[in-house]
Amino acid sequence: MFQILDSIGVFVFAISGVLSGLNKRLDAFGVFIIAFVTALGGGTLRDVLIGKTPVGWMGNLTYLYIILLAYFVTLFFKRHLERLRVSLFLFDSIGLGVFTIIGIEKGIEFGLHPIICITLGTITASFGGVIRDILCNEIPVIFRKEIYATVCIAGGVMFFLLKRVHLNQDVLYLLTSLFMISFRLLAVKYKWYLPSLYKKD
Amino acid sequence: MFQILDSIGVFVFAISGVLSGLNKRLDAFGVFIIAFVTALGGGTLRDVLIGKTPVGWMGNLTYLYIILLAYFVTLFFKRHLERLRVSLFLFDSIGLGVFTIIGIEKGIEFGLHPIICITLGTITASFGGVIRDILCNEIPVIFRKEIYATVCIAGGVMFFLLKRVHLNQDVLYLLTSLFMISFRLLAVKYKWYLPSLYKKD
Amino acid sequence: MFQILDSIGVFVFAISGVLSGLNKRLDAFGVFIIAFVTALGGGTLRDVLIGKTPVGWMGNLTYLYIILLAYFVTLFFKRHLERLRVSLFLFDSIGLGVFTIIGIEKGIEFGLHPIICITLGTITASFGGVIRDILCNEIPVIFRKEIYATVCIAGGVMFFLLKRVHLNQDVLYLLTSLFMISFRLLAVKYKWYLPSLYKKD
Repeated sequence: MFQILDSIGVFVFAISGVLSGLNKRLDAFGVFIIAFVTALGGGTLRDVLIGKTPVGWMGNLTYLYIILLAYFVTLFFKRHLERLRVSLFLFDSIGLGVFTIIGIEKGIEFGLHPIICITLGTITASFGGVIRDILCNEIPVIFRKEIYATVCIAGGVMFFLLKRVHLNQDVLYLLTSLFMISFRLLAVKYKWYLPSLYKKD
Repeated sequence: MFQILDSIGVFVFAISGVLSGLNKRLDAFGVFIIAFVTALGGGTLRDVLIGKTPVGWMGNLTYLYIILLAYFVTLFFKRHLERLRVSLFLFDSIGLGVFTIIGIEKGIEFGLHPIICITLGTITASFGGVIRDILCNEIPVIFRKEIYATVCIAGGVMFFLLKRVHLNQDVLYLLTSLFMISFRLLAVKYKWYLPSLYKKD
Repeated sequence: MFQILDSIGVFVFAISGVLSGLNKRLDAFGVFIIAFVTALGGGTLRDVLIGKTPVGWMGNLTYLYIILLAYFVTLFFKRHLERLRVSLFLFDSIGLGVFTIIGIEKGIEFGLHPIICITLGTITASFGGVIRDILCNEIPVIFRKEIYATVCIAGGVMFFLLKRVHLNQDVLYLLTSLFMISFRLLAVKYKWYLPSLYKKD
């Protein structure tokens, strides 16, 4: 089940990467690379930082195939994606939750402090987008106006709070994910933003 | 022989880095760094991703000396480089072939799947240029209009096809390199580009 | 003592990161990330390149707390920082010296050649700023007009020259740091720049 959600996350993140690449008028190779780093860049950075090498996607070709599928699906159906906007947003939020949990678990596996685990969860879920934006020559959107990373951090705190009460792992994952998904939906619906710190001057 | 070709590749990649740095009006240090990452950035990224650390150039100062040589040669003779344009392009294509094969062999050494090995070959040969472009604040040229990475991927496929017939290693390397060099020369001569995917809308 | 200087370095580098982030009008999260990478990005890159993973800050939360402190101090007192400009510059130069020495020592610990150790010292002290500039979508300032990296390299050479005469470690560190701090102060006072190489054409 969790594996399926992870695959859905990769798929949806890759679609958003393809759309970014098309938007920047990249060629077929460039668009694929942007899809790849959007989907797997966060996990790759996490693996490099903790020393889990060769990095994850090198040992499991499934991720590559999912990204290829997302690539062609997006190219062929991009006229229709607008109609799926709400579904895509929901799946993207699922990806956010699943990726955060995967990053946290990897930190626990390496015996790291909960704060570092939450950092790794946030990197896993949100730094693919950072690398995408750097490659596209933009200041990363999550540094400017998205509440993305905040959701990851809040989800990570929730994860460790829930973990204290010794829940069954499935329940722990489910509650953490639901909390993050709800948080994000509310954040977008009610336009919650982090303060820009700028106007205070 | 192969070692010499590798050195030529580093030398020519470094020259192209120096020219990019000069073009961006960087100072003496900045130009050197751009030369360095253009020549060795791809291999460094590859080593980091597979966990072969300390990364390659840290154990062999030869690369550093070759880049220093390329740096001073370019600064002193840059007026004359224009006349060597065709030779430089040929050497650059040799570097592309050699770097791809080195990356593939590193992947095989780490027991990775052929598709991942081809990915590593492509990263080795073409991501130095990606890092160069990011440092120079440009969208990487190979994501926009160069057939560079495509040549690496095609060369990688050719490598594994030829490997199946149990060729002698020298012959395998030679045929793969010649295939890639010819592919690139033809691509440039006949202006083959990847589709931009953009106009389909 | 050295540990305290290291903490001061992280603190001051983080302040400069916060100021960069504010300047780019990032939100609260973005500003924090820029502070983090400015302070710890160089050491992180060094650890990744030599394979010392999980990277340094993952095993010691002190760094994270220092950066959080620098973050809030800067936000609350930024009107007054201008008056502290000279002190901040002095502390920044101390950070430069300490970070360079830490990077060099890490290279020695890994049995690397002195030239590579100096490279690692330079990366530790100056590549946090490079990553900051890339995330802020700028060509790194140290590639254009700062004498920053030159000070690191000169300090590294001085370190190995002094090491030859078998000084006590404290004296070695003190002399190297003082040399670097003086060099930088003189460089800024007398506006020493590296040649841009550009006007030679």
